[in-house]
Amino acid sequence: MADPTLIERAEILLEALPYIRRFAGKTIVIKYGGHAMTDDLLKRAFAEDVALLKAVGINPVVVHGGGPQIDRMLSDLRIPSEFRRGLRVTDAATMRVVEMVLAGQINGEIVTMINQLGGRAVGISGKDGNLIVARRVAEPGTEGDIGRVGEILGIDPELVASLEQRDFIPVIAPVGASAAGESLNINADTAAGRLAEALRAEKLLLLTDVAGIKDDKGELIATLTVSEAEGLIASGVVTAGMIPKVECCLQALHGGVRKVHVIDGRVRHAVLLELFTDQGVGTELARDAVRPARRTAKPGGRARSGG
Amino acid sequence: MADPTLIERAEILLEALPYIRRFAGKTIVIKYGGHAMTDDLLKRAFAEDVALLKAVGINPVVVHGGGPQIDRMLSDLRIPSEFRRGLRVTDAATMRVVEMVLAGQINGEIVTMINQLGGRAVGISGKDGNLIVARRVAEPGTEGDIGRVGEILGIDPELVASLEQRDFIPVIAPVGASAAGESLNINADTAAGRLAEALRAEKLLLLTDVAGIKDDKGELIATLTVSEAEGLIASGVVTAGMIPKVECCLQALHGGVRKVHVIDGRVRHAVLLELFTDQGVGTELARDAVRPARRTAKPGGRARSGG
Amino acid sequence: MADPTLIERAEILLEALPYIRRFAGKTIVIKYGGHAMTDDLLKRAFAEDVALLKAVGINPVVVHGGGPQIDRMLSDLRIPSEFRRGLRVTDAATMRVVEMVLAGQINGEIVTMINQLGGRAVGISGKDGNLIVARRVAEPGTEGDIGRVGEILGIDPELVASLEQRDFIPVIAPVGASAAGESLNINADTAAGRLAEALRAEKLLLLTDVAGIKDDKGELIATLTVSEAEGLIASGVVTAGMIPKVECCLQALHGGVRKVHVIDGRVRHAVLLELFTDQGVGTELARDAVRPARRTAKPGGRARSGG
Amino acid sequence: MADPTLIERAEILLEALPYIRRFAGKTIVIKYGGHAMTDDLLKRAFAEDVALLKAVGINPVVVHGGGPQIDRMLSDLRIPSEFRRGLRVTDAATMRVVEMVLAGQINGEIVTMINQLGGRAVGISGKDGNLIVARRVAEPGTEGDIGRVGEILGIDPELVASLEQRDFIPVIAPVGASAAGESLNINADTAAGRLAEALRAEKLLLLTDVAGIKDDKGELIATLTVSEAEGLIASGVVTAGMIPKVECCLQALHGGVRKVHVIDGRVRHAVLLELFTDQGVGTELARDAVRPARRTAKPGGRARSGG
Amino acid sequence: MADPTLIERAEILLEALPYIRRFAGKTIVIKYGGHAMTDDLLKRAFAEDVALLKAVGINPVVVHGGGPQIDRMLSDLRIPSEFRRGLRVTDAATMRVVEMVLAGQINGEIVTMINQLGGRAVGISGKDGNLIVARRVAEPGTEGDIGRVGEILGIDPELVASLEQRDFIPVIAPVGASAAGESLNINADTAAGRLAEALRAEKLLLLTDVAGIKDDKGELIATLTVSEAEGLIASGVVTAGMIPKVECCLQALHGGVRKVHVIDGRVRHAVLLELFTDQGVGTELARDAVRPARRTAKPGGRARSGG
Amino acid sequence: MADPTLIERAEILLEALPYIRRFAGKTIVIKYGGHAMTDDLLKRAFAEDVALLKAVGINPVVVHGGGPQIDRMLSDLRIPSEFRRGLRVTDAATMRVVEMVLAGQINGEIVTMINQLGGRAVGISGKDGNLIVARRVAEPGTEGDIGRVGEILGIDPELVASLEQRDFIPVIAPVGASAAGESLNINADTAAGRLAEALRAEKLLLLTDVAGIKDDKGELIATLTVSEAEGLIASGVVTAGMIPKVECCLQALHGGVRKVHVIDGRVRHAVLLELFTDQGVGTELARDAVRPARRTAKPGGRARSGG
Repeated sequence: MADPTLIERAEILLEALPYIRRFAGKTIVIKYGGHAMTDDLLKRAFAEDVALLKAVGINPVVVHGGGPQIDRMLSDLRIPSEFRRGLRVTDAATMRVVEMVLAGQINGEIVTMINQLGGRAVGISGKDGNLIVARRVAEPGTEGDIGRVGEILGIDPELVASLEQRDFIPVIAPVGASAAGESLNINADTAAGRLAEALRAEKLLLLTDVAGIKDDKGELIATLTVSEAEGLIASGVVTAGMIPKVECCLQALHGGVRKVHVIDGRVRHAVLLELFTDQGVGTELARDAVRPARRTAKPGGRARSGG
Repeated sequence: MADPTLIERAEILLEALPYIRRFAGKTIVIKYGGHAMTDDLLKRAFAEDVALLKAVGINPVVVHGGGPQIDRMLSDLRIPSEFRRGLRVTDAATMRVVEMVLAGQINGEIVTMINQLGGRAVGISGKDGNLIVARRVAEPGTEGDIGRVGEILGIDPELVASLEQRDFIPVIAPVGASAAGESLNINADTAAGRLAEALRAEKLLLLTDVAGIKDDKGELIATLTVSEAEGLIASGVVTAGMIPKVECCLQALHGGVRKVHVIDGRVRHAVLLELFTDQGVGTELARDAVRPARRTAKPGGRARSGG
Repeated sequence: MADPTLIERAEILLEALPYIRRFAGKTIVIKYGGHAMTDDLLKRAFAEDVALLKAVGINPVVVHGGGPQIDRMLSDLRIPSEFRRGLRVTDAATMRVVEMVLAGQINGEIVTMINQLGGRAVGISGKDGNLIVARRVAEPGTEGDIGRVGEILGIDPELVASLEQRDFIPVIAPVGASAAGESLNINADTAAGRLAEALRAEKLLLLTDVAGIKDDKGELIATLTVSEAEGLIASGVVTAGMIPKVECCLQALHGGVRKVHVIDGRVRHAVLLELFTDQGVGTELARDAVRPARRTAKPGGRARSGG
Repeated sequence: MADPTLIERAEILLEALPYIRRFAGKTIVIKYGGHAMTDDLLKRAFAEDVALLKAVGINPVVVHGGGPQIDRMLSDLRIPSEFRRGLRVTDAATMRVVEMVLAGQINGEIVTMINQLGGRAVGISGKDGNLIVARRVAEPGTEGDIGRVGEILGIDPELVASLEQRDFIPVIAPVGASAAGESLNINADTAAGRLAEALRAEKLLLLTDVAGIKDDKGELIATLTVSEAEGLIASGVVTAGMIPKVECCLQALHGGVRKVHVIDGRVRHAVLLELFTDQGVGTELARDAVRPARRTAKPGGRARSGG
Repeated sequence: MADPTLIERAEILLEALPYIRRFAGKTIVIKYGGHAMTDDLLKRAFAEDVALLKAVGINPVVVHGGGPQIDRMLSDLRIPSEFRRGLRVTDAATMRVVEMVLAGQINGEIVTMINQLGGRAVGISGKDGNLIVARRVAEPGTEGDIGRVGEILGIDPELVASLEQRDFIPVIAPVGASAAGESLNINADTAAGRLAEALRAEKLLLLTDVAGIKDDKGELIATLTVSEAEGLIASGVVTAGMIPKVECCLQALHGGVRKVHVIDGRVRHAVLLELFTDQGVGTELARDAVRPARRTAKPGGRARSGG
Repeated sequence: MADPTLIERAEILLEALPYIRRFAGKTIVIKYGGHAMTDDLLKRAFAEDVALLKAVGINPVVVHGGGPQIDRMLSDLRIPSEFRRGLRVTDAATMRVVEMVLAGQINGEIVTMINQLGGRAVGISGKDGNLIVARRVAEPGTEGDIGRVGEILGIDPELVASLEQRDFIPVIAPVGASAAGESLNINADTAAGRLAEALRAEKLLLLTDVAGIKDDKGELIATLTVSEAEGLIASGVVTAGMIPKVECCLQALHGGVRKVHVIDGRVRHAVLLELFTDQGVGTELARDAVRPARRTAKPGGRARSGG
């Protein structure tokens, strides 16, 4: 593989610098999950990306998931899992395990990895500083009751904003508290989206295990407007597994987030490449009126491959 | 029980207000443990005290322990415990449980209880923001190796100070990280003492299950200087179980903390009573030169019972 | 008299702390007069209360009267007093004595007493910094001319606000200046009320020589709304002597002061007890919409005796 | 009298502007007394000067005396005066009159006059904000006891500095308080000098009823160094009446005040002319090393008449 | 010529000080041109005035012209000048000379002269910091095309405001840049007027070679309202040469500048005399509603000679 | 030429980001001259680099030369040039041309080019704000007198620092003023070096027309310490033309500049490549103790080719 020439290096920098300038001081919320959380090389590259973003003056906020580790701990404790319509019934004992694993194990590992690379991460959960106030999706005994699974009632972003301002990197376990103080399990994509809204984030990045959103010919779509995305769902091009993710993106856009990116977490340094190159590594969604901004803001920027 | 008269009420307030003034804006580090962490009435009263301190402009910082809950979880997971010279050998699996219970269970419960009472607590561990950097007390394979038990190398108080300034209440699980990123179990008394030093705290309060420090006649001592305390240890009046606690106090005083209090955590609202009444509910330790200050600072203050 | 128990002490503190929090940084204007200004024990207790309020971060502003001392000095100087419809005719010589006694004698005594107790009081009159701009209630030679008795045209609160911010305690003699620079005597209750409005004070406290406002059965009323107070005046329950005071209260409430308290200045530490206990020592007046606030703001607070 | 020509006007302004610049933001303490306090034209001109200084960004601080008015009031109240070695014996009754006249009459008149001319004066005494802490020159019953005549123990300039910063003009009655709260009469020259030191004033101006300090030929001296002034005292050229004033000047210079001016208060606008013209209207005293500064700082400045 | 007496000096200062106060912190834009730019005594007096204004806290901004020097340089370089309807056709070579002389010669001389007198002048052109964005008055090849002569499209005052705040004195060469980066020659009167608007200046001073604006009897007019000035143009009293200057004044007044002064640059220290004396040295123009302000703002101020 | 792969792009960014972080908020002084000032592509690339540095939070300060343009203008004006020992004798007429060309022509062109690319450049000379105070290298009539050629006596960096803080880009013509106000021509390398010292710049970059400093085998040296550079001069490896430049570098390093870079101005985007890649495009000089910092600060950084 030939080393890039001087002029190629200069061009990559000339391409990246305007993005660095544009995002300086801005908040980027990143939903971290999937392969990027289990493969060692990807884990380290992710932590490097997060630490470097902070180092150049951008404010990353990480919201993580944790499915496999929770399963393993439930099994170690021989707590059986019951499923209803695909959702795990989360009784008190199960919830205690969910919280212990998310807030007491995974969260700390991410924090340590970022700190090892020079960042200053701080692990919190949605209970801290009343960050996420939630309620059960169904009250006990009513139809659809699946226990301690919560939907978000409100976000108080002050704790996260304070940490940002002091140049800490918040790493957030998606657990909320009800008004009565009950811990509730929250979907991590949704938590990331709502937090991005509350923080008036510049961007929401969802790390997935796919290349991005594809069109009816199976080709990756570089940029999508809200109405185009709604069309893809309506016409059945976006398939079942992807629908909740795309809807989470649309919700965040409606809530004021400038852009949402569904990116390929299997690519090393996916976060850096999506943010600082014209080409990116996934699909960028924006409100209908916002799309042209990217292209014209950087004169001479190459169009995205599938754009 | 007769209701206090108006003049009695006024006198209690007149007695308390100078303390409230004196401690306004100051940091009070509280080691929380023992009965006060298990009895429901005491738990609630403790959370009330912490929330009220913050409400009147004092900055409480809570460091908690967690022995019994860790034992239960290790047993649930059928992880056997080996002890060497009274200390638990903490292998990787045990440490994972310690951390999960401290940072993922107990910590969140304290946070939730304070938040229920109007405070804004934030749960962190010593790994967050590089708060506690530690190393093993003995390297693997060397004599005295008991695994992931750590001694503190350094404290970076910036995260705690930031939270304080934004009027959050830090609740800290005593887990540290080594330079290589390994989680280490830290003694909670020691962590509280070192943190009090690093924060230049006004006071360190240790909640215990005893009335305080007693003299050779078994009577409670209201105030002690460093040299008197050293004398009590030398003469064997302070008994074995209390020695590490008193040494932790002396270390904090040498490190710059103004006063250290060993208080009776079994008394409801022990924190409030110790801080805002002349009489107190335990033993107050101060450097030799500092002791007279309390009495003269508040003219007419009644002397402590055993003072 | 039995000493209050530990739990009683804790309860009095738990009751007081939320008030201390609520009033922190707020301005409390206190009209000081009557017995509380002549009895030595009451004088000292008043000065203690004022100094302690400041010490816990509340901003007291004192406006004082001075009737008896003025009479004495006029008599010493053999200046005769003429009365018209119950009001003293205040010629130039009389006004000079009024000002000398208020600003040059009583004011300084209050300042010194507060300073002796650790406060930092500053004595001013309404002439300083154009604090009170006034005009004669009747022009010379017109009907009702009683000389240099003034009504307030405007308040410039900047001087008082500056002193507050620097943690001085303003002590104000109710003398104003006309546009032409003539000194005018101002009613102290009115001056306190108007100043409370201009400072957007949290509270106005009027120290009187009665227990508070009473209902038609002669029982003390704990809390009153504006419309209830107007009803009491209309129905003749509030008697002649009290009417101007109640009207001064209503004016202050209309002008934006949150609450006005008519309290019993004969009770030692009346200021402290009214501010920091649920029961209080007088009658609290609030706008119609505000009344419920007090009771609900502190859950579990006992209702006032006559409430 | 011919009107000054345009170029003469320009030259007067060119001469004055550098002084205005040099003194901007600086504190000028002015001892106000003598004819300037009794003649109506001089009183108004003085108030104009003070208001204008503030208007152009200089901070005047006025300390006033009050001899004749005190005598009149003592006589009106038929309080006899006893003198011992030329000093009035000041018993409690006399002191009360002194304070009433200084703080309750003269002080308010000066304040009102400045305010009438657009300034924002604030009248205080040395008791306010613990400005002047003093003790009796001789304890009761000891030799030299002349009652409530005080010498200054300490100055706390914070109140005056706060008023300055908020663009108020402090007008100070020379009354101090002892540690026990007793009012004491303070010499106004001394009070002005000590205050100038404590405020690190640029200048101290003493308004007198003479042309300034004269040499052995009876000619006015424009500028004097400390050592020259000490020489004049030693050689008897400075006569008895002037000695305390000159010693007060020397003390202020030793205490850090840059320059002290003994000026002719009988000249209308003496303050303005001394500050803003090269020629001045009195004698300027400076530390030995400072004298040349004035002449060289403004190239082309005409030498003072008697310099 | 008799030296002004002390009282005359005091009166000149009393007259000037309120103006100094009123203009403190305000911006005064001065168009500098004509004799005042060529006569050595006038040049030095102008630089003195500018430096002194800054010294007393007023913010002068100088915009200069440069006709004669440009002519000389064009002649030295043997570049012929073509005129069309009285305006010089400014081709690329001519423009280069214009810019070199304005920005590289005259500008630097003014800067140096002010700095010699203790000011801190900074020479810039309208190209710096995008201060003046302009376009050609006629596009190349269209009717009226006279080359690189510009009209102002926009002013970005930030650079000038920044320099002011740091107490530098901006000295501005009237050259602008087009959107495409072409240098354009701008009329200095217009540039000064537009800059005064953008800076929300207190005053615009135009130094001319006449005594001011005259009425139909040839007498100097001291003050003019907008409608009076429009009347003078309509009735032909203001003659051709003066019309563009008066229209520039009217435009600035419409644009928000408080007052505009057409002053006699041939009088030494014209700037100082106009600003700091009642009489002034030219004609003052104000919006119709503003005129009375000057007279009433300074009670007792003498009316202007021709007012 | 193959497009760089994703991982190559990521690596270039990973390499660059730590430099961007490290230089954020720092000052980089750039001496701009040679080919980079005459070739159109290089001129534009230079302006792009400067604008982008500012955009990512680094503070570039440009000092430019101007030899060829000065020669042309002198020739156009038929002003003969006399040389003495290789230096041009600069009489008053020549100096006027030097200043006009530098400050009135070249400076404005650089400013316009940067502004066209989105920067906000401000052109000044060393006379502005007393930036460069100088004196003739030889007094008139003494040996070595070559007229208005100056050596720097002092730098007042406040103007440049102010412009930086407001996010303007200073572009500086190397002309200074003597104490007497005479314009003097200053060597641009020296001016850049001295300015870098006074600004406590992170770096000084000298754009040259060579690849960098070469060793005795003619190979480019990547990094040099002060003592190594002194050795190269002593041993004659650094040849005559390069000696003044290297001495200028050494002077800057002694004066506190962290690093000095002699870079190849003929490479497009040389500034960007030198700052943001490990490899660089020239020779980096550092104090003896500083050299290792670069390599260890970025773990894994490739060593410079010739390092």
